[in-house]
Amino acid sequence: MTSAAKLENAESLLDRALEVLTNGSQIDVRNLVRSLYPAEAAHILEALDPERRAKLWSMIPPGVIGQILVEVNVEVGAALLKITDRKDLIAATESMGADGMVDLLHVLPEPLLSQVMESIGVHNRNRIEKALSYGEHTAGGIMSDDVLTIRADVTLDVVSRYLRLRGNIPANTDSLIVVDRKEHFQGVLPLSQLLSHDPHTKVAAVMDTRIAGIPYRLPSREVAGMFERRKLLSAPVLADDGRVVGRITVEDVIGLIRDEADHSLMSMAGLSEEQDMFAPVVSSAKRRALWLGVNLLTAFLAASVIDLFEDAIQQIVALAVLMPIVASMGGIAGSQTLTLVVRGLALRQVSGSNAGRLLWKEISVGLLNGLLWAGVVAVVAGMWFHRPDIGILLGVAMLINLVCAALSGVAIPVLLDKMGIDPALAGGVLLTTVTDVVGFMAFLGLATLFLL
Amino acid sequence: MTSAAKLENAESLLDRALEVLTNGSQIDVRNLVRSLYPAEAAHILEALDPERRAKLWSMIPPGVIGQILVEVNVEVGAALLKITDRKDLIAATESMGADGMVDLLHVLPEPLLSQVMESIGVHNRNRIEKALSYGEHTAGGIMSDDVLTIRADVTLDVVSRYLRLRGNIPANTDSLIVVDRKEHFQGVLPLSQLLSHDPHTKVAAVMDTRIAGIPYRLPSREVAGMFERRKLLSAPVLADDGRVVGRITVEDVIGLIRDEADHSLMSMAGLSEEQDMFAPVVSSAKRRALWLGVNLLTAFLAASVIDLFEDAIQQIVALAVLMPIVASMGGIAGSQTLTLVVRGLALRQVSGSNAGRLLWKEISVGLLNGLLWAGVVAVVAGMWFHRPDIGILLGVAMLINLVCAALSGVAIPVLLDKMGIDPALAGGVLLTTVTDVVGFMAFLGLATLFLL
Repeated sequence: MTSAAKLENAESLLDRALEVLTNGSQIDVRNLVRSLYPAEAAHILEALDPERRAKLWSMIPPGVIGQILVEVNVEVGAALLKITDRKDLIAATESMGADGMVDLLHVLPEPLLSQVMESIGVHNRNRIEKALSYGEHTAGGIMSDDVLTIRADVTLDVVSRYLRLRGNIPANTDSLIVVDRKEHFQGVLPLSQLLSHDPHTKVAAVMDTRIAGIPYRLPSREVAGMFERRKLLSAPVLADDGRVVGRITVEDVIGLIRDEADHSLMSMAGLSEEQDMFAPVVSSAKRRALWLGVNLLTAFLAASVIDLFEDAIQQIVALAVLMPIVASMGGIAGSQTLTLVVRGLALRQVSGSNAGRLLWKEISVGLLNGLLWAGVVAVVAGMWFHRPDIGILLGVAMLINLVCAALSGVAIPVLLDKMGIDPALAGGVLLTTVTDVVGFMAFLGLATLFLL
Repeated sequence: MTSAAKLENAESLLDRALEVLTNGSQIDVRNLVRSLYPAEAAHILEALDPERRAKLWSMIPPGVIGQILVEVNVEVGAALLKITDRKDLIAATESMGADGMVDLLHVLPEPLLSQVMESIGVHNRNRIEKALSYGEHTAGGIMSDDVLTIRADVTLDVVSRYLRLRGNIPANTDSLIVVDRKEHFQGVLPLSQLLSHDPHTKVAAVMDTRIAGIPYRLPSREVAGMFERRKLLSAPVLADDGRVVGRITVEDVIGLIRDEADHSLMSMAGLSEEQDMFAPVVSSAKRRALWLGVNLLTAFLAASVIDLFEDAIQQIVALAVLMPIVASMGGIAGSQTLTLVVRGLALRQVSGSNAGRLLWKEISVGLLNGLLWAGVVAVVAGMWFHRPDIGILLGVAMLINLVCAALSGVAIPVLLDKMGIDPALAGGVLLTTVTDVVGFMAFLGLATLFLL
């Protein structure tokens, strides 16, 4: 079996797992479990229905359940905790490093948390309590305290001998952190530098001082952006006085990048990126009900606008036939602008200082497309109902709505962001309210003014 | 200035750049440029309007423009190429490694490409032509051929001496690749292992053989998933016969993870993740026009459904007032399911084998929420128009539409995916067509049956 053949095609990972769980023997399942990396197991567990999820989970050795629990999303984790034996769980925390344990403790519910904390030795407990004291979504919360530091004034040979004496190097160490006597950050020594230079060279001569330390309070999404844009493999985390308190590696950060991007997508549909795809029907329905309820309110608001123009509709039924077109096109155009701005805000590429330029650009685009499609609908609707006047009013209403949509598509998310409200979550509801109300009001209002 | 203070808050990076570009002197701009990593410069360039973008670009030294061009998104890259001096561009390719050059060549338009290829020496040209022969979106296309290989039967001491003799190690090397005489992949030797073991140990004794090689043909999105789930820092790329042909590092992959997640978000609004936020108005308008046109067709389709029931509306105007509520709620509920499934498909967590389970779950959720909100709208609408019968029909129509929305929300993206059509792009249009048509048809049809 060559190594290339050993690699299972990622595409078939889920299908293979489903096949084994449905038709395979106990031994097949055990072999599957043994072949999986923890995050691969997590990936599969997230995609399984409750029965097969429970089946797979029961076959996973207690030694790795901790590593898997920190990988699955919050909801799936909660579902798995419910079917996990408490003793296994406590054993799992004991077999993890302090660092992994902190991640795990973040996902444990309160009663379990105290129970686990009691079973931990004093030294580790202090370390963990300290780690838990950092905000979960800050550099301090995601860092590991497993750091190898060296001094700048020793030779590479001394460093090499120290590493061999130590015998092990923390996982994913690509560089050593250089500090002074007071543990203040000086620079980093990449292992590749250590290996490619003369052993008599001083650390100070080959260390990299360009890498900036990360303040422990920096929000984790800023940390992710920094790793992404500076192409870091690891970076030291510093206290306010410049002391090195920990280290963040690119592995800690990849999940954050994925989550952040997913957050915009899911929020725009009123969902959470921590959603369990196979959550029980009742709890799924409950959570979605809120979103539907909010949207129902806005739909009634739009309906009450239509209600104002009952007379017009009674006299010219074509108005009722055509009015959804205006609202729908406004909604589509607005959501294009909204999506662009929501992503820009998430990536920090839209801010107060360039939003104005973007607003003018989007309004111009809305105006151009408004003119184009207003012309088209004017002709089509005019011919359909043999009423050119209705066609023209439809076109004008659409032009008005597309410009409003562009305006709201920029203004709503930027204002929400300034107010500290998630623009991805609240933006869509507000936007469709505007485009529905403006759409119906413009078309039916113009019709009332000019046709009755 | 301590290192912690040296770190600019990522949030203010764009604002600082905008401030300097608007009010700063030439020297301020030059200092800004000097402080930026290439991907940071790319990030800012993407967020600038054309004038300030051109201003910043003109200040960037020719030596780094190549590195920035490979970082910006496709559209912004094309815009920058238009304002780049050809001589600078050719100079830029000359100062890049073969590897970066391949990335850059991928973004160059045809006439420029041939011109650059001519200016390259024969040795490099062969290397580059080989690299370009791999598909751009495959492991071969993203790998670097800058690989350090060693044999399993030598001691760590020999390896260390070899590295020192060589004097430099390719960037982001966290491990050396162990091969046999025929260059066939055997395993990897992490630098940390090399450093922490006795120099007399054989490579074979400490190398890691669990890491699988990546077939050069594997699609890049599978590569990204593998790095993400196996927490790899680097992995060898293998030819069909198991020979090592290159190496992929986590840096090559982070951008892919970001792009893939962005793709779903942007496509669902009919946008591209390679969009230039500040593209010229006319070309933006042109591209969006297509999306609006497609949606206009579906809006006319929905209107023609309403038109079938002109009589009903003429007799009971309340129907026209209430009908958008049914369509709108269906659209919202459907897009929740659609988003869940589109993300699941992108992450490979939804496949033919679990789509059936998901379908039943979503339909059950739709049914529950349909019952809940049908009850609410029946009461509210019944009281509003003093017509309990209309309220009840509205509720029934909504129930029908929410179940249809759940069904379409799962079925449409899964079928599109099977047909090789991007479900994120086409799913939304098809879904709203279904929910609009079913919504209007159910409500107005029931009203015609029972109320006229």
